[in-house]
Amino acid sequence: MGAAGRTGPGALLPFRGNQPMADDHDYDRAVAEIIAAGARLDRFNWVPATAGNLSVRLADGRVAITRSGGHKGFLGPEGVIAVGLDGRPLRPGDKASAETGLHCGIYRRFAEAGAVLHGHSLANTVLSRAAGGAVTLAGYELLKAFPGLPTHAALVEVPVFDNDQDIDRLQQVVDRRWDRLGQVPPGYLIRGHGIYVWGPDMATARLRLEALEFMLACELEERRAAR
Amino acid sequence: MGAAGRTGPGALLPFRGNQPMADDHDYDRAVAEIIAAGARLDRFNWVPATAGNLSVRLADGRVAITRSGGHKGFLGPEGVIAVGLDGRPLRPGDKASAETGLHCGIYRRFAEAGAVLHGHSLANTVLSRAAGGAVTLAGYELLKAFPGLPTHAALVEVPVFDNDQDIDRLQQVVDRRWDRLGQVPPGYLIRGHGIYVWGPDMATARLRLEALEFMLACELEERRAAR
Amino acid sequence: MGAAGRTGPGALLPFRGNQPMADDHDYDRAVAEIIAAGARLDRFNWVPATAGNLSVRLADGRVAITRSGGHKGFLGPEGVIAVGLDGRPLRPGDKASAETGLHCGIYRRFAEAGAVLHGHSLANTVLSRAAGGAVTLAGYELLKAFPGLPTHAALVEVPVFDNDQDIDRLQQVVDRRWDRLGQVPPGYLIRGHGIYVWGPDMATARLRLEALEFMLACELEERRAAR
Amino acid sequence: MGAAGRTGPGALLPFRGNQPMADDHDYDRAVAEIIAAGARLDRFNWVPATAGNLSVRLADGRVAITRSGGHKGFLGPEGVIAVGLDGRPLRPGDKASAETGLHCGIYRRFAEAGAVLHGHSLANTVLSRAAGGAVTLAGYELLKAFPGLPTHAALVEVPVFDNDQDIDRLQQVVDRRWDRLGQVPPGYLIRGHGIYVWGPDMATARLRLEALEFMLACELEERRAAR
Repeated sequence: MGAAGRTGPGALLPFRGNQPMADDHDYDRAVAEIIAAGARLDRFNWVPATAGNLSVRLADGRVAITRSGGHKGFLGPEGVIAVGLDGRPLRPGDKASAETGLHCGIYRRFAEAGAVLHGHSLANTVLSRAAGGAVTLAGYELLKAFPGLPTHAALVEVPVFDNDQDIDRLQQVVDRRWDRLGQVPPGYLIRGHGIYVWGPDMATARLRLEALEFMLACELEERRAAR
Repeated sequence: MGAAGRTGPGALLPFRGNQPMADDHDYDRAVAEIIAAGARLDRFNWVPATAGNLSVRLADGRVAITRSGGHKGFLGPEGVIAVGLDGRPLRPGDKASAETGLHCGIYRRFAEAGAVLHGHSLANTVLSRAAGGAVTLAGYELLKAFPGLPTHAALVEVPVFDNDQDIDRLQQVVDRRWDRLGQVPPGYLIRGHGIYVWGPDMATARLRLEALEFMLACELEERRAAR
Repeated sequence: MGAAGRTGPGALLPFRGNQPMADDHDYDRAVAEIIAAGARLDRFNWVPATAGNLSVRLADGRVAITRSGGHKGFLGPEGVIAVGLDGRPLRPGDKASAETGLHCGIYRRFAEAGAVLHGHSLANTVLSRAAGGAVTLAGYELLKAFPGLPTHAALVEVPVFDNDQDIDRLQQVVDRRWDRLGQVPPGYLIRGHGIYVWGPDMATARLRLEALEFMLACELEERRAAR
Repeated sequence: MGAAGRTGPGALLPFRGNQPMADDHDYDRAVAEIIAAGARLDRFNWVPATAGNLSVRLADGRVAITRSGGHKGFLGPEGVIAVGLDGRPLRPGDKASAETGLHCGIYRRFAEAGAVLHGHSLANTVLSRAAGGAVTLAGYELLKAFPGLPTHAALVEVPVFDNDQDIDRLQQVVDRRWDRLGQVPPGYLIRGHGIYVWGPDMATARLRLEALEFMLACELEERRAAR
C-alpha cells in the first residue's frame, strides 16, 4: 500500500527533498514505540492528566513527538506529530507542545540521543521541589544502567532546574549547565515539572527512566527517615 | 432499531416534549463515558466499595448519573440513571444517590460544566481530614490543567467543606462559598468524603481529576516531611 | 449434563440426604464468586504468597472455602473445597486450611453471614501489630458501608485479637468478645495475621472489605503524622 | 516436531551425553515459568529497568536463567539461556548475567533449590541500605511460608551482604555465612542490590518471594514510625 492510504504526518509529506517518499516505515515505527511507552508510563502513573511527552528521532533527522494536550497513556497515531530539530511542526496546522523545545534541545546537544521521555512522578515532583540544584544518587546497583558509570560505587548528580514557562530561556539554562559539566548526566529534573531522560533508542530510554525513577522513589523514602 | 429495543432510562422516555424520541444516542454515549471513567477511577483505587459517583449532562438538560449503591469500577448500563437538574430520577422507581444533589448543584451553578466526577482517594481523604477550610496548591506545572491558571506560578485554593448527611444543606454551604469566591476553583473536597471535580466534558473532567489527585498526593507526601 | 461430568467436591456428593443430587449450581456459583474475589484481592496485594482465604455459605448449609495452601489470586475450581459448619471437609482427602475454623465461627455466630473474606494487607498487618485491643474508625463517609451505622459521624471499634496457632482457642476468644459487645463490628483483625470481614453475600463482603481496607490505609497514613 | 524446529539453547544441544536429545520439554517448561514469573515481578515493580534475574534448575543439572540485560517483565524465549552449575553458558556466544554466579551458588549449596528469584523492590533496597548485617522478621503469620518455621512466633534473620561487583568474591562471603548459620534463611539481601529467594520449584519460590517482600514492606512502614 502506498503513502496515500496512510494516516499521520507522513501522509502529508509525500516528498523528502526531491524524491517521492515511499511508505514512511521509520515514522510509523516511532509512533508505535511512543504509543507503547505512553501506556507503560501511565501504568506507573507517570503521565497524569496531560503531563509528559515522548519523542523519537528518526534517521532522517525528523523528530516524532506527542502532540500538545491529551493523555499520554491513551495515545493513538493522531496523538503524535513530526517536528524538525528546531521544534517546529513539519505539517501546517499541527501544534507542538511547549516542552518540544526541551526534547529538541537534547537531540541537538547529544548526537547519540535517539529517544526522550518526560514524565511527572510523585517522586520526581516532590524531590525536585525539595532539592537544591541536584539530587545525588549513590550506592545503587541500578546506577549501572547508565553509560560511563561502571559500578554501584558511582555517585551521580541529577541536575534540578527551576521551572520556567519560557522554554527557550529554560533550554539555555540547561545548555549552560551541560557546558560546565564534564560528565553527561543520566537525566534532569525541572522543579515541580517532572523528569527528562534519553537514550540511543526508545527501549534504552525506557530502561533508564525506570532505573532513575526507582532510585528517586528510594530517595524519597529515605528522605522520610532522614528528617 | 427503535427505542423499544433499548435498555436504560431512555427506553422509558419515548417522548421528549411532543416529539417521539428516536434512539437516545446522547444518553448512550454518556453511559459509555461513565462506565469507562468508573473503570479508570477504580484502577487508581479512587472508588473503593460503593464510594464515588459520576455524571454527564446531556444536551437536553438531563443528567446521566451513577445509581445509588454498587461498585463504580464495575458499572454496566443498569448502573446509570437519568435525573433532572433538580436531582429527581426521570424514571419511576429509580433511586438516586444522596450525592446527586451535589452533582446537580455544580451543573446549576456552572453553565460550562458537562461532567462531574466524585471519588475517595487516600490523599483527598487524609488531607481533607487534616485541613482547615482549604488545601493550597502552588508551584506545580500541572496547575496549567485548570482554566484561568496560565502558569505554574499560580496559587490555587481547593475549598474543603465539612461533611454533612443533609446534602441540601451542604449544597447551600457550597453555593455560599462560590458567591464569595471571585475565581472558580478546580474542584472541592468534603472532609472525609472525597473530591468533586468537573469539566466541560468527561474527557476534560478526567484529566482535571488526575491532575488534582496527583498534586494532592504530592501534598500528602510533603506533609509527612513538614511535620 | 449430569453431575457425573462435573469437577469439584459436588461431583463426589451425588446424594444430599436421601435425594440424588442434580447439578450443583449453588456450589458452582460459590466457586466462581470465590475465584473472582481472589483475583480482586490479589489486585490490591491483599493475598500475598498463600495468605488469605475466602468462603461462601450455600443454601443447604455447606461452606465453599479455599483449600489449604496455594495462591488465592490464581484460584481454579480445584482450589475450593466444601466443608460443614464444623469446618470438616465433606469429601475424604480434602485438607482444610487452619483458618477454616474462623470462617465457620463467623457463620455459626451470625445467621446473616453468607460470605467471609480474610486477607493480609500492609495496612491491616502494620496497624494490628501496633494497636491494642481495637482500631477506632471515625469521621469517614465510608462508614456508611456498614449496617447499623447510618452516618459518617459514627465511631466504630474494629477488634484486634492476638494471633494464636490454636485456631479453636482463638475462635473462643473471638466468641467471648462478641458476647460482650452489644454491636456487631464490621470485621476484626488478628495481630500480624490479617483481617476478617463478612456480609450476606460475596458482593457485599467485597464492598465491606474494600471500605474497611480503605479506612485502615487512611489510618496508617494519619498514624505517620500523629507520631 | 523434532528438536531441529525448536528455538532456544536446547536447539543447539542435540545430544546429551551420547544420546540424541528429543524435544527439550524440561527446558521449555522452565522458560515458560521464568517468563511468567518475570511478568508477575514486573506487576509489583520488582524488576525495574534491567534489574533482577530468574532461574530454574532442570532435572539434568542445567540451569535455565535470564540472559544479561533486557527487561525481565517482557521476556521471550530468547531472553533465557542455559548455563552449567559453574555459571558458564552452554551455547557458544550466549552471555550470562554477572549475577548468574549467585544463582549457581544457591544451587550448589542447597540441593533442594529448584528455582531462584532475584529482584529489586523499593522495600528491599531501602531496608538493605539502612540495615546492618541482617533484617529481623518476627510476629508475622506469613513466616509460616518458610520451611522449619512452624509458627508466627518464629524470629527470622534475613542476612544482608555488602554489594560487590566481584561476584565470585561476593559468593564466597555468602558461603561463609551459610557455614556459620545453623538454619537456612528464607533468602538474603545485597545492600542496594536486591533480594535472593529460592524454593524447590518456581511456584514455591514465587510464594516465598511474595511472603518476604510483604514482610519487608511492613518493616519499612514500621521503620517510619520507629524513628
